[in-house]
Amino acid sequence: MLAFAVAVTAQGVAQKYVDASTLTIGGRTQVVPDKPYARVDASKHKFDSKQITAYCDYGAGVYVLFTTDSKNISAKWKNAPRATGANMTPIVQRGLDLYIKSDGRWVFAGVGRPARESANGVNKDKIVENMADGAKECMLYLPIWCAIEQLEIGIDENASIAPLDWPFSHKIIVLGSSITHGASASRPGLTYTARMSRMTGMDFVNLGFSGNCKLQPEFARLIAETEADAYVFDAFSNPSTAEIKDRLASFVRTVATAHPDKPMIFIQTTIRDRSTFNTKWAAWERERRETVTRLMTEQARRYKNVYFLDSDDMLGHDHEATSDDTHPNDVGFDRFTDTWLPKILKVLKKYGIK
Amino acid sequence: MLAFAVAVTAQGVAQKYVDASTLTIGGRTQVVPDKPYARVDASKHKFDSKQITAYCDYGAGVYVLFTTDSKNISAKWKNAPRATGANMTPIVQRGLDLYIKSDGRWVFAGVGRPARESANGVNKDKIVENMADGAKECMLYLPIWCAIEQLEIGIDENASIAPLDWPFSHKIIVLGSSITHGASASRPGLTYTARMSRMTGMDFVNLGFSGNCKLQPEFARLIAETEADAYVFDAFSNPSTAEIKDRLASFVRTVATAHPDKPMIFIQTTIRDRSTFNTKWAAWERERRETVTRLMTEQARRYKNVYFLDSDDMLGHDHEATSDDTHPNDVGFDRFTDTWLPKILKVLKKYGIK
Repeated sequence: MLAFAVAVTAQGVAQKYVDASTLTIGGRTQVVPDKPYARVDASKHKFDSKQITAYCDYGAGVYVLFTTDSKNISAKWKNAPRATGANMTPIVQRGLDLYIKSDGRWVFAGVGRPARESANGVNKDKIVENMADGAKECMLYLPIWCAIEQLEIGIDENASIAPLDWPFSHKIIVLGSSITHGASASRPGLTYTARMSRMTGMDFVNLGFSGNCKLQPEFARLIAETEADAYVFDAFSNPSTAEIKDRLASFVRTVATAHPDKPMIFIQTTIRDRSTFNTKWAAWERERRETVTRLMTEQARRYKNVYFLDSDDMLGHDHEATSDDTHPNDVGFDRFTDTWLPKILKVLKKYGIK
Repeated sequence: MLAFAVAVTAQGVAQKYVDASTLTIGGRTQVVPDKPYARVDASKHKFDSKQITAYCDYGAGVYVLFTTDSKNISAKWKNAPRATGANMTPIVQRGLDLYIKSDGRWVFAGVGRPARESANGVNKDKIVENMADGAKECMLYLPIWCAIEQLEIGIDENASIAPLDWPFSHKIIVLGSSITHGASASRPGLTYTARMSRMTGMDFVNLGFSGNCKLQPEFARLIAETEADAYVFDAFSNPSTAEIKDRLASFVRTVATAHPDKPMIFIQTTIRDRSTFNTKWAAWERERRETVTRLMTEQARRYKNVYFLDSDDMLGHDHEATSDDTHPNDVGFDRFTDTWLPKILKVLKKYGIK
């Protein structure tokens, strides 16, 4: 269904609006009936937690692909109301982020700034204006920290818009915590999964579930029932040491045996800046990381398709790479990507994924 | 005046609260009667603009210095209500950011997360907990994008707190735009002025006036009447080419002759990511930057204490260093600092400032 309407931008260029769900949507784990921008079908994959169920509808990592000859691009969108997190910009939480292909590379073009929280999720913004003539291939990242209920893309009245073919070579599912979810990137295109996708041409699908990725059997089943070329797990940022000891073997067995020919790559959790001065937290975290290293070394011996990537320095050592003592800021995600991407690619290469 | 009250943290440690205005306050351009956390006395330095007048009370770059043997530090603060900017975290806008001296270096310790916008500026948070015994030297950065009306620092009931001597060797005033003001650092300690201060041991005082730093005579007079060891100007990010042509010579004359033996360092403005695809903006910006280079080269010839630092790459060339097409994110400020600090230090060295 195409919904056309004519409006006028600040520059006086009339815009018509097209329902984004008629274009190509990527970055989803699966297609969810009646929810074009959801990542996971929570009616099929049941979770006990209301929070996890709600997160299934969030737009983290989801993008709309289209080609247009419009010189101006705007958007109208409606998100489910959501309080602004203290460690996030409204742009990353409820805004849009546009990239355009230029010389074979996806290049940042502009953001859709959300309205204030009090606007109840009704947003409208110009994203980029006064572009040169010719067709542009566009990838519009959705907000990472809310459910998107409606999205319309505005183009010049005399311009055309069409779905763009999915441009990635492989699909790699990344299950994880708030760090994978994207806190505290400054805009939706700067999560580490989105960055790795643009850097490699493979789609690192964002399955971040902030605060809730604790090796639960529901997540193991979701992974077991989801087809992809490879799987990455930021699985040790949320659970306690006791939860890891209790759940890890069962979790790994489920995912590793469900996809015996696909790589299952588990990464170590970061050292929080909270550890610097908080001695209790530092001891708690040290025990957790040591437990992870010990248990994952065993698991990686047990299953030929299970890999454990350890690291003690993914955020550097200057303590300037988080927004709040825990969540990487853009500097943190720069370092995070520098640390993990070469190691992940090395594993993928063994499986012909490159 | 000390205001004591006893409260209990989540860990069950009773806290007493001390009025932060009884401690050492730094990072201000001048001391403002009855406004301990204001940067500039707007009753003395008059501005036509209500926005500029309001910005004088903002906490950008202002910090509280103290020493304490408390194992836990919390805060209660009240800010003048302010809408959350789309490109800023609530933490950088209305939150607190604590650094503690460790092995001679200021190290990030934790943030004070502000309450939601609807809380009308009343905030309370734990900043760091469970620290080791012994005295800690602390620097608490204030919120960058609001006026702070009250601030109390919470310490353990049996602990002591005292003002700490100002630890910097020189005072360098940085007048500028939103980029200097701090948009879009992820927390108050990550503005480029705060980073340069910690990196050098010299205090780069934040006089950022978002959107409003346009070579006005009021700003020239403020600089002329303010004593410092050196002055840096991010003066070309806000004005139009016409305003620069109209106002630059008079502005430079006023500041350069008021402090004939002090270096006046003018830096070029960044290339916005908005230029990448917006052809009209790119042309507008190119003309502005070329005008700046031409006119500032003349000014630097005219006055022996005037310097112009030009650069075409302070934010890099991958277009991933802003939050919104204009304002540096933490990656942007990393690159900004890498570009400018060595050039600024080279000038300062000629004046024995090192």
